[in-house]
Amino acid sequence: MKVLIIGGNGTIGKKVSEKLSEKHKVIIAGRNSGDVTVDFSEVSSIKNMFDSVGKLDAIVAIAGDAKWDKLDNLTEEDFYIGIKSKMMGQVNVVRIGKDYLNSNGSITLSTGILADDPVDMTTSAAMVNGAINSFAKAVALELEDGKRINVVCSDLVEDSFEKYAAYFPGNTPVPMHKIVDGYVKSIEGRITGRILRITA
Amino acid sequence: MKVLIIGGNGTIGKKVSEKLSEKHKVIIAGRNSGDVTVDFSEVSSIKNMFDSVGKLDAIVAIAGDAKWDKLDNLTEEDFYIGIKSKMMGQVNVVRIGKDYLNSNGSITLSTGILADDPVDMTTSAAMVNGAINSFAKAVALELEDGKRINVVCSDLVEDSFEKYAAYFPGNTPVPMHKIVDGYVKSIEGRITGRILRITA
Repeated sequence: MKVLIIGGNGTIGKKVSEKLSEKHKVIIAGRNSGDVTVDFSEVSSIKNMFDSVGKLDAIVAIAGDAKWDKLDNLTEEDFYIGIKSKMMGQVNVVRIGKDYLNSNGSITLSTGILADDPVDMTTSAAMVNGAINSFAKAVALELEDGKRINVVCSDLVEDSFEKYAAYFPGNTPVPMHKIVDGYVKSIEGRITGRILRITA
Repeated sequence: MKVLIIGGNGTIGKKVSEKLSEKHKVIIAGRNSGDVTVDFSEVSSIKNMFDSVGKLDAIVAIAGDAKWDKLDNLTEEDFYIGIKSKMMGQVNVVRIGKDYLNSNGSITLSTGILADDPVDMTTSAAMVNGAINSFAKAVALELEDGKRINVVCSDLVEDSFEKYAAYFPGNTPVPMHKIVDGYVKSIEGRITGRILRITA
């Protein structure tokens, strides 16, 4: 399969890329590095990325930012950071990318535990994650030609544990291989419309 | 209690207003009618609304639009209709309105079944509803002084059944009194951070 991994050089992305490279032809898209560069918050950049890579069997998005802070400190503009990047970035990857998918191809998006079980300072991040979970379930009803969409929705991952542990008291970090398995399940399986919740 | 109902003249809003008026002082905000008018998609208009009504014991939002159409037909701008109105409208009501709440006051937002169980042509609407469910859970962790937030997340309601039935094959409409009960439970109870899923 020919697989595009947007964010394939990130903390999770590089582990997913490594694993998928064993069996598939992997193309990595990144903000500043990779086989192709993309600004995830710009429709035109997403379109250019797809034009340059051509037809695909699987599209994976593990990208996008949202601002973490107390609700008291978050301005409307701060909310739009996550909306334009992690939320509409993934929406636009689906809107545009579905037409670059071969029959039976898959799209796999990425969200996290915050959608269901937020922590302090995540009103914006939780919102964006919940949005994408619901969006993907709705998209699955409309894709044709065997095309599929799923979301890997993971708890705090081992490789990010040090960076985020203070935000998640009492959280048991998820082994990376379980997260990687989620992406493999979405890409190589036949499921669609599923939110794959990965916990320790 | 002094209760502001944004969208208090709408299909659901008028039933909620009727019920709450039995025990509380109800102020209705609407786009074109009500005790105070508000453009739900404009921060400045939301701020003016709160300034004109002053301190409150409960804020209820039953307002906001999103565009329903096939994903193939939805432009990025179409997605922003729901983002600016139903999604950021409710976020801004919380961001701004929490400072107008008396101690132990409540905010009740409104979403729907599409967040969990979307139907055809609702990729944008589902997204917005899922976003607000997750947002509210995160907000509940940060509110202080006994202030609370909940979401009434209802299945297709009886009074909208004729208008939307074609979108929801096999859906059993929810009796209006059950939806009204959800708002009463949020306002008069002590719960917070809850998504009150109202089904038939």
